[in-house]
Amino acid sequence: MADHIYKKIELIGSSADGFEEAVKNALARAKKTVRNMRWFEVAETRGYIENGEVAHWQVTLKIGFTLED
Amino acid sequence: MADHIYKKIELIGSSADGFEEAVKNALARAKKTVRNMRWFEVAETRGYIENGEVAHWQVTLKIGFTLED
Amino acid sequence: MADHIYKKIELIGSSADGFEEAVKNALARAKKTVRNMRWFEVAETRGYIENGEVAHWQVTLKIGFTLED
Amino acid sequence: MADHIYKKIELIGSSADGFEEAVKNALARAKKTVRNMRWFEVAETRGYIENGEVAHWQVTLKIGFTLED
Amino acid sequence: MADHIYKKIELIGSSADGFEEAVKNALARAKKTVRNMRWFEVAETRGYIENGEVAHWQVTLKIGFTLED
Amino acid sequence: MADHIYKKIELIGSSADGFEEAVKNALARAKKTVRNMRWFEVAETRGYIENGEVAHWQVTLKIGFTLED
Amino acid sequence: MADHIYKKIELIGSSADGFEEAVKNALARAKKTVRNMRWFEVAETRGYIENGEVAHWQVTLKIGFTLED
Amino acid sequence: MADHIYKKIELIGSSADGFEEAVKNALARAKKTVRNMRWFEVAETRGYIENGEVAHWQVTLKIGFTLED
Amino acid sequence: MADHIYKKIELIGSSADGFEEAVKNALARAKKTVRNMRWFEVAETRGYIENGEVAHWQVTLKIGFTLED
Amino acid sequence: MADHIYKKIELIGSSADGFEEAVKNALARAKKTVRNMRWFEVAETRGYIENGEVAHWQVTLKIGFTLED
Amino acid sequence: MADHIYKKIELIGSSADGFEEAVKNALARAKKTVRNMRWFEVAETRGYIENGEVAHWQVTLKIGFTLED
Amino acid sequence: MADHIYKKIELIGSSADGFEEAVKNALARAKKTVRNMRWFEVAETRGYIENGEVAHWQVTLKIGFTLED
Repeated sequence: MADHIYKKIELIGSSADGFEEAVKNALARAKKTVRNMRWFEVAETRGYIENGEVAHWQVTLKIGFTLED
Repeated sequence: MADHIYKKIELIGSSADGFEEAVKNALARAKKTVRNMRWFEVAETRGYIENGEVAHWQVTLKIGFTLED
Repeated sequence: MADHIYKKIELIGSSADGFEEAVKNALARAKKTVRNMRWFEVAETRGYIENGEVAHWQVTLKIGFTLED
Repeated sequence: MADHIYKKIELIGSSADGFEEAVKNALARAKKTVRNMRWFEVAETRGYIENGEVAHWQVTLKIGFTLED
Repeated sequence: MADHIYKKIELIGSSADGFEEAVKNALARAKKTVRNMRWFEVAETRGYIENGEVAHWQVTLKIGFTLED
Repeated sequence: MADHIYKKIELIGSSADGFEEAVKNALARAKKTVRNMRWFEVAETRGYIENGEVAHWQVTLKIGFTLED
Repeated sequence: MADHIYKKIELIGSSADGFEEAVKNALARAKKTVRNMRWFEVAETRGYIENGEVAHWQVTLKIGFTLED
Repeated sequence: MADHIYKKIELIGSSADGFEEAVKNALARAKKTVRNMRWFEVAETRGYIENGEVAHWQVTLKIGFTLED
Repeated sequence: MADHIYKKIELIGSSADGFEEAVKNALARAKKTVRNMRWFEVAETRGYIENGEVAHWQVTLKIGFTLED
Repeated sequence: MADHIYKKIELIGSSADGFEEAVKNALARAKKTVRNMRWFEVAETRGYIENGEVAHWQVTLKIGFTLED
Repeated sequence: MADHIYKKIELIGSSADGFEEAVKNALARAKKTVRNMRWFEVAETRGYIENGEVAHWQVTLKIGFTLED
Repeated sequence: MADHIYKKIELIGSSADGFEEAVKNALARAKKTVRNMRWFEVAETRGYIENGEVAHWQVTLKIGFTLED
């Protein structure tokens, strides 16, 4: 595992269903184009409000993945 | 949408049922007196412990709403 | 000036015209209901983009004012 | 105590007499209009200087209070 | 309650099942050796990814407990 | 608008003409390769000095854009 | 003094009498079980309010002490 | 350019005319006594309010300059 | 008061007698060489411990003063 | 040099040999696909431990490079 | 690896020989009493100066280790 | 040691040879004009890149020294 290089990108997932679903949606989208994802860090949690209720959760993630040689 | 002015207030919602419920409780209370709420930002997540278990989740929110002219 | 008490509120001004105009718009709105405003602090500067250009500047301000006895 | 909702406001107390007095002055003023204050957090400590000596201590507080139903 | 002294420790709970479960797992483990736990603060939320999906949530907590005389 | 996923990138725009121009220059360059830009956040404002005067403003932006499916 | 190793722990002292007393109370308690304490850092200052007045100051300290070989 | 040593000082420029003018005023003053200024960083932007309008912008700058041998 | 320029310097005052005395000692020393001091900001509060008790309070201050033309 | 636009990416270099080698490894990998790299900023320094010793240093870098027209 | 619980402690290693040696010294001391150390995070890097030269590097580490059941 | 007053200044040392050399270069330069330096704190670590390799390390230090009476 020595000398691996990782890259971090910043995505924002959203979901009407909740905090964890917003994270999962971001990963599901990232999976289409990013290989070798290893971890994520929650940077910010927000949400949009309509009619006084949570309409969408929005979670900003940093996602780390291994850069292939 | 140009030239809208927003105000942010800081509330803490609590709930024995979980993180998202604490957020919802804060919004439900705010809704009674605040109109035109647009978004929230989670500033801090804490909880009180009784008998070694989570008794209440406590989530500090910043809530943004449109100021009417 | 001893023993004055101040309160800070958090507003977000927006303007299609620029950073300073967004600040001025926030103060102009606050002036309608807040007396004795003394200073502001810029907490965050953002903007919305349409067609690849700045559509609105959005500046988050903390505004301090004297509380009357 | 479950499901209580709290609000936080930001005040700045000042006093020529010292740090703790500035905090007390802020609370004494807040007490006139805010019920059910529960806790405060010191956010910033500053002071004004005249003739090379502390003229006024200025302490920025966040004050949390219970919102009644 | 005057003059109580508290200590804070920093634990990281993990769970394949979600954010709240990771918090609960950390408290369940702490309960074995720490008495009089009073509150926790979420310091960081991360997760490990396998095959493009969340494999484990990892939540860093600060846990406060009363020091007995 | 539910379940949109956004990505954030970090650019630094520079301009001899001022703060707002530096922001606009960054967006103008980004527009060539990035579609669906939605918002920016000012992360840092700096400048280079020559002969005791501002030679270039340099503004670090985070730019958010919608990821297409 | 070369090659000394220190450990930091986080305590919260409280006192009805003031900020400095809360610090002293934390140290007095720590002294019972920790040897070789060298310094403290104030991480947070808070207080509980009863009847609109400060009931207890609460000061979070990081305390550094030498680890013996 | 190897092995250059720089020093940073912290100035606050003010101007009734705007954000950029406050920066320029700080540099104009610094230029009288500081040689070899290379860059500045905006640390804080504030302003004083009179009659509900911006009276002075106040911008805190860190200014870096080369130390001569 | 328009267009005043201020400089900030960073001093650490210490005192065996308490937090406020450490601030006062820093100002008393600064007064010998710095004219026109206007305000201070407390950046950090620490202390040295001897025999389990506070030996010296150490307070890091940023001190702002007017630069004369 | 006026009006250059830069982009920042975030990489994590690792090395069993030390802090500086981890930085160099990240740059060596980035060099394969990124042209015109200008500077880096160390954002975080961590390491993995095996058998009580440092197994790999891991350094998170922000790398800035010029965007070509 | 699911449901592992980790604890973090904060140590300060010092060394006259350099930054990396200070980290290694902290780990070597921790190894005497802590099992299953997994990672460290550098929180702060400082040093003491004697006769204008670095006398000791001092590195504050957070060290994470697995809590056994 | 009671009642000592310290001042902190901010320098940036650079070196083509490495992180520690950049720190040493800053101290060597400071030593020419500053007496009684006691400690330094690493505030920021950066570097310039040429041809995809580290050309110079740049380390921002805060240096504390005793103010003589």
